[in-house]
Amino acid sequence: MEDFIFNIPTQIVFGKETHKRVGQLISSRGYKRILFVYDSGKFLQENGLLDEVGKTLAESKLEVTELTGIRPNPLLSKVHEGVEIAKKNRIEFVLAMGGGSTIDTAKAIAVGAVEDGDVWDHFYSAIGVSPIFEALPVGTILTIAATGSETNCGMMITNDETGLKRGAGGPGAYPIFSILNPEITYSLPAYQTAAGVCDMYTHVTERYFTNTKNTYVVDAMAEGILRTLYEIGPKLLKDPKNYDLRAEVMWIGTISHNDTVGVGRVQDWATHDLGYEITDLYNLTHGATVTIMLIAWMKYVFEHDINRFGRYAKFVFGIDPQGRNRRDVAYESVLATEAFFKEMGMPTRFSEAGIDEPDVERMAETICKERDYIGNFIQLKHDDIEKVYKLAM
Amino acid sequence: MEDFIFNIPTQIVFGKETHKRVGQLISSRGYKRILFVYDSGKFLQENGLLDEVGKTLAESKLEVTELTGIRPNPLLSKVHEGVEIAKKNRIEFVLAMGGGSTIDTAKAIAVGAVEDGDVWDHFYSAIGVSPIFEALPVGTILTIAATGSETNCGMMITNDETGLKRGAGGPGAYPIFSILNPEITYSLPAYQTAAGVCDMYTHVTERYFTNTKNTYVVDAMAEGILRTLYEIGPKLLKDPKNYDLRAEVMWIGTISHNDTVGVGRVQDWATHDLGYEITDLYNLTHGATVTIMLIAWMKYVFEHDINRFGRYAKFVFGIDPQGRNRRDVAYESVLATEAFFKEMGMPTRFSEAGIDEPDVERMAETICKERDYIGNFIQLKHDDIEKVYKLAM
Repeated sequence: MEDFIFNIPTQIVFGKETHKRVGQLISSRGYKRILFVYDSGKFLQENGLLDEVGKTLAESKLEVTELTGIRPNPLLSKVHEGVEIAKKNRIEFVLAMGGGSTIDTAKAIAVGAVEDGDVWDHFYSAIGVSPIFEALPVGTILTIAATGSETNCGMMITNDETGLKRGAGGPGAYPIFSILNPEITYSLPAYQTAAGVCDMYTHVTERYFTNTKNTYVVDAMAEGILRTLYEIGPKLLKDPKNYDLRAEVMWIGTISHNDTVGVGRVQDWATHDLGYEITDLYNLTHGATVTIMLIAWMKYVFEHDINRFGRYAKFVFGIDPQGRNRRDVAYESVLATEAFFKEMGMPTRFSEAGIDEPDVERMAETICKERDYIGNFIQLKHDDIEKVYKLAM
Repeated sequence: MEDFIFNIPTQIVFGKETHKRVGQLISSRGYKRILFVYDSGKFLQENGLLDEVGKTLAESKLEVTELTGIRPNPLLSKVHEGVEIAKKNRIEFVLAMGGGSTIDTAKAIAVGAVEDGDVWDHFYSAIGVSPIFEALPVGTILTIAATGSETNCGMMITNDETGLKRGAGGPGAYPIFSILNPEITYSLPAYQTAAGVCDMYTHVTERYFTNTKNTYVVDAMAEGILRTLYEIGPKLLKDPKNYDLRAEVMWIGTISHNDTVGVGRVQDWATHDLGYEITDLYNLTHGATVTIMLIAWMKYVFEHDINRFGRYAKFVFGIDPQGRNRRDVAYESVLATEAFFKEMGMPTRFSEAGIDEPDVERMAETICKERDYIGNFIQLKHDDIEKVYKLAM
């Protein structure tokens, strides 16, 4: 096991009707002037959420300034807009209501609001380069389960001038509290639900496929999460207002991305790095980029450690290895993963996402502009990256 | 899934040599006058730990007052002694180095130090009756993996006047940081190692055996932890200086008792309640009381939900249910649990712990003095409690 530091300081308030406690959760901590950042999509109005949250904020006598219009793969320009508002209004607390994009925007605003320089200076390809120690306190009401941003200290922002999507993070960037009410996700469209489930799946695989030896319990727990997603993902698509299934997925979104199953090991993250470039170039939903790239990545790397893929086959898909060739079993787990993503309605090749001639060369170039390789299970250099992209064609 | 609130605010610093960072971890937070509570057993001197920690505290220019002589099942009188010292010396921070007993003593001192009344007023059979909101900050250096006290907000103390062992806890009682260095546990005797492993095992089973429906992912993760303990426990007894195995057990001690696999479900805890009375009456190591009582409890309750025990059989012990009677499979999992505890050298009956004629009536009486029943998987009333104790004879 590798050395590590771990904590989950964010207070997670999970369950039915919990969004109605938000005013009290802020005011009991002594804050008054808040910036309320939310997705301005119709669904917050239609399901009455915006009204209900507005009411609890008013009841707690909070002074609310609003910021809306966050788009997926959120933009630095929106963050700058929020920072200016926060400084002008002497904001004490930033409340985010939305998915990962909204929460990441709120986090970045909270960082920028306490700094003289540009918040973008914290954003690098590798998190931890310019760590964040200070920010305004942030609280979240999660409306889409997927990114895990609600309990981690990271954020991803796209610089609209350069087109680069980059990450930042640090101990000062954890939300103070996060409200997770599975009922809120009932009306999430099937495609977004599926994209979320598959994104969580890859958050676990990025941690699971490692060269670190003897990672017993974290492996077993990771397999448990993957097996659960494999089991309940399709059930949820058929029964989208099932509270227990929504609750499972919402909770898995959190635990699959706060290092509960990532501690003590070298992690990979090539699948995500490969996916970011597809989003940058073709504006494809993040969840669809990682389903395409995980399958291609697995096909490229599985022979590197057929025992680990064999374990994955056995404990996630229940594939019996007895009397069979180990390589075959390992490859069957790749096909089982692909079949799962297809069952979820997600693309596993570029063409299935409407990208018939992906600019492989350009994406590989962009990735290699700032670093020599991506990933750790196998280090992927420029040529490997092109090959993996081509496996997805 | 049931509603819940969850966080792990304690910063866990895990790995080799990490105890040498303790001075810096305290002084960087601005504290100066510390109370250093530690187990005065020989092993801290012999392995040089006390010297090394003393050196880092001195280098960080901390003013250290010491308190030693903590016994297993720690006493309220020692807590009172610590509270008096803390108040007299205007202590700002309490550092614990030891296992659960030392940490729980330090936590209780930290609570008492900021109160006018008696800290015992917080202690009840059920945690949460008089919750703790305020305490001096506590840091820990864990030397025995078992109780999970290093990252939870609970503590168990025995009142030496009444003989009652009781719990307290609350949001103010989490340690600020906990240092987990697996190397420190190399010299732990086999019996204590085994008692720790089995105690962790029951921390998971107390959460796993529930009537809450559709607890998918927490079940799968709990099974992963149990399977890992079953796999590596015996290996560790044969190879006690194996870093990776010690690291696994140390980490499992933490995650099996901070609700990582307990959220969203009604938990049981009858095994622990039954065990506490054995400790009170016969001064038996906690880990040995729960191995005896878990087996007896399982034998008494398994027919209540043979599907859950069947799942336990399959995912923990790999017992194939195909073509077999479900009750038989369920019961086989009980026997497999018993065989595991025996392999670990732990007792599974009173006689194996040198208690030939346990005073069943008296223990049942004591339990029922303050409540009508224990446990939730099946509520055990006075008669049930006697029957379970008798199953362990």
